[in-house]
Amino acid sequence: VTDVPAALLASLRAAVGSPHVLTDPELTEGFSTDWTGRFHGRAGAVVRPGTTDEVEAVVRACAEAAVAIVPQGGNTGLVGGGVPLHGEVVLSLTRLANLDPVDVAATQVTAGAGVTLAELQRHADRCDLTFGVDLAPRDSCTIGGMVATNAGGTNVVRYGPMRAQVMGVEAVLGDGSVVSHLHGLPKDNTGYDLAGLLTGSEGTLGIVTAARLRLVPRPAHRVTAALGFAAIPDAVAAVGVLRSMVTSLHAAELVLKDGVMLVASVLGLEPPPALLAPAALILEAASPTDPTEEMAAAVARLSTVGDPVVATTPDQRRRLWAVREGHGEAINRLGPPVKLDVSVPLGRVAEFVAGLSACLPPGAGLVIFGHLGDGNLHVNVTGVLTHEPNAEEVARAEAVEASILEAVVGVGGSISAEHGIGTAKVRYLHLCRTPAEIAAFRNIKQALDPAGILNPHALLPALA
Amino acid sequence: VTDVPAALLASLRAAVGSPHVLTDPELTEGFSTDWTGRFHGRAGAVVRPGTTDEVEAVVRACAEAAVAIVPQGGNTGLVGGGVPLHGEVVLSLTRLANLDPVDVAATQVTAGAGVTLAELQRHADRCDLTFGVDLAPRDSCTIGGMVATNAGGTNVVRYGPMRAQVMGVEAVLGDGSVVSHLHGLPKDNTGYDLAGLLTGSEGTLGIVTAARLRLVPRPAHRVTAALGFAAIPDAVAAVGVLRSMVTSLHAAELVLKDGVMLVASVLGLEPPPALLAPAALILEAASPTDPTEEMAAAVARLSTVGDPVVATTPDQRRRLWAVREGHGEAINRLGPPVKLDVSVPLGRVAEFVAGLSACLPPGAGLVIFGHLGDGNLHVNVTGVLTHEPNAEEVARAEAVEASILEAVVGVGGSISAEHGIGTAKVRYLHLCRTPAEIAAFRNIKQALDPAGILNPHALLPALA
Repeated sequence: VTDVPAALLASLRAAVGSPHVLTDPELTEGFSTDWTGRFHGRAGAVVRPGTTDEVEAVVRACAEAAVAIVPQGGNTGLVGGGVPLHGEVVLSLTRLANLDPVDVAATQVTAGAGVTLAELQRHADRCDLTFGVDLAPRDSCTIGGMVATNAGGTNVVRYGPMRAQVMGVEAVLGDGSVVSHLHGLPKDNTGYDLAGLLTGSEGTLGIVTAARLRLVPRPAHRVTAALGFAAIPDAVAAVGVLRSMVTSLHAAELVLKDGVMLVASVLGLEPPPALLAPAALILEAASPTDPTEEMAAAVARLSTVGDPVVATTPDQRRRLWAVREGHGEAINRLGPPVKLDVSVPLGRVAEFVAGLSACLPPGAGLVIFGHLGDGNLHVNVTGVLTHEPNAEEVARAEAVEASILEAVVGVGGSISAEHGIGTAKVRYLHLCRTPAEIAAFRNIKQALDPAGILNPHALLPALA
Repeated sequence: VTDVPAALLASLRAAVGSPHVLTDPELTEGFSTDWTGRFHGRAGAVVRPGTTDEVEAVVRACAEAAVAIVPQGGNTGLVGGGVPLHGEVVLSLTRLANLDPVDVAATQVTAGAGVTLAELQRHADRCDLTFGVDLAPRDSCTIGGMVATNAGGTNVVRYGPMRAQVMGVEAVLGDGSVVSHLHGLPKDNTGYDLAGLLTGSEGTLGIVTAARLRLVPRPAHRVTAALGFAAIPDAVAAVGVLRSMVTSLHAAELVLKDGVMLVASVLGLEPPPALLAPAALILEAASPTDPTEEMAAAVARLSTVGDPVVATTPDQRRRLWAVREGHGEAINRLGPPVKLDVSVPLGRVAEFVAGLSACLPPGAGLVIFGHLGDGNLHVNVTGVLTHEPNAEEVARAEAVEASILEAVVGVGGSISAEHGIGTAKVRYLHLCRTPAEIAAFRNIKQALDPAGILNPHALLPALA
């Protein structure tokens, strides 16, 4: 049933208790496939520790047996970083669900790796606070996974990504040592930034077991606006004006005419004319005091196409957001897309988008949307893959992917904005990281995971 | 004159040109002492490279010769981290003064390590932008030094410390390899956070040669307020209210009655009654739109002592800040103080301050002020040291320092908030970092500086 050595299984059972070591394929199957079904592997065993001490015991046992571990949170990743593709031991962190009382004076909280984002949000909300990162899979995704992948989302333009929320971590490093620095002091220059290093390391350096997280005031007032522009450069310039004039701007999302028309027809929505301009922004500001006036003053400075829409009621807001959020579903209706999550310097977004058509094979469609405030674009190519793709389609999809990622790098962009490298993008890492950088990464990996057991197929390419 | 081997000197001269290798004690003296005169050493040589390639050549030459390097920026540090105490080669980065045009779309700029903070500020100002970190030695301190020490200052409560401004670095690691990632993408999950790791590493892992820096909108409106409170816990609670209600709050400074009275008498100032309360806050908000109303609404919610002062003219503002900024000078008039830069969890500031008198020898005085928004306190003990302290006074000062730092750790604080560990606090690092953390630091150091030549006496204690 499993190729994990019997002696190791015995150690794992001793460490976490037999009920928390799963080897029955019926039970391990759910841990061996990601939620999209794109990444499918096989867990040698699934281990579900309930405390940091148990995580330590598991890591030490696996290190000694030289058996690889794939850490897993809510299993909502998009790049195969949490799926055991080669019979690894899955270390599921969902039982580390401890959530301390909110430290109201510091506006911080310590959360176990297994706490879901939605739980954290409800917890903060009870103290009139909120969390600076929000993601669609909030009911499943966990704090540990969000730290490990440096999760992003729509509010990065205001609060930064996950790394900006992490004030400290507790983690078990690859050598089994436990590091913990959860005081959450905003100013603390006593050594290297282990928390920042572990954030975004995709489980390759250590297993994050808890995090000290910054919370932010829950805004009482919110305003959403939709603005149309004649072309992408106007939308980019508008983001600059808005960022300088609207202190509480927390979302600046780009949609393009083709995408909006697709969403409208597939989902039966009726977008306002502003959103049917060649390029459009959906903006949101949220503040303790009403940001409507500030937003209106900024909007008045912009050269827009069609009448700007300023939504202040929840229903108006929902209708604008439905257009943005409907993109994923509308695209999927056209068949499985080739999906890329990239970021591009703001000054080069227009040039990048204009060049994309050259990356497409005949008959392919292109839908682009994204978090323009961060230069983060989600690029979707339709008409290349079918639901049961043959080898030729897969090869064509890979060629499109490689071609687009090269275009990204050509404008100084990043091949992974917020999803990470995982196992899916390892082969592309060299496109945007030099041999010297990758060598430094390897040296750091060797320093903290000397046995090389932590998520060995993720992030770093295998040595040639 | 120098104990740097002749062969190495020849290599250094070949690398950077003879005029930029100094060995004459008259010339090296200024690089061998810090500006306060507390740390005095001797440079084996001072090397002043003009390009990153030259830095690389210097590091490779020193690594090969196994000669230690102390990197130095503006030499404004406070913990002896940039002073050659043991005849090291000083690598002065001030000639790396290249400052790229501001990337207005991204609101970022790439600055060489030797650019001073004031130069950066003027450069940003010309584009209606500013830099999120400000420090008193702005005319001397350099970007490279600020990155290396993760500099803080009064605006951390809004913009975060230096690490939050650094979007990427170029650096020469201890093995001579050059890593560079200066695209400045706000979302970029392609590997480990080398920039964050190097920030605050005090030159022990790599030499930062350039940084990509976030700029922020230059606020058009500014309001400063002074509020008095009956006791420290009221001031702490007020900071919470202010942070939740005033989005653009960028400074929340604490002063205490003893300190304000000292400043008033020594410098001949007349502080408003609010600042003569047992505890007082000097607050500032700055925003594209006038924050006065938001500030007034928040202040109205607080239980203050005496009438709050809300200053809107530059002159009124200057008079309030003079009280805060006069603390350093007023304290120095009492003789050389024992100065500590610590941070404490906000919820425990009052308890920490109350306990400090037990740390003092008879006859000593205590003046505390600081950045309350970050829990960062500057603790000054007077009456212990004289200008030419004898051994007994030095021992007494060290005992006071150790006692206060233990009190800091006792409330979960940090022994170095914004100044770093340098060489001065190495012996205290174990107070707030566990053996496992220090071991992880050592492993990272070994990974990036395998020959151990970069600032070997700073940050990490020598192995026993």
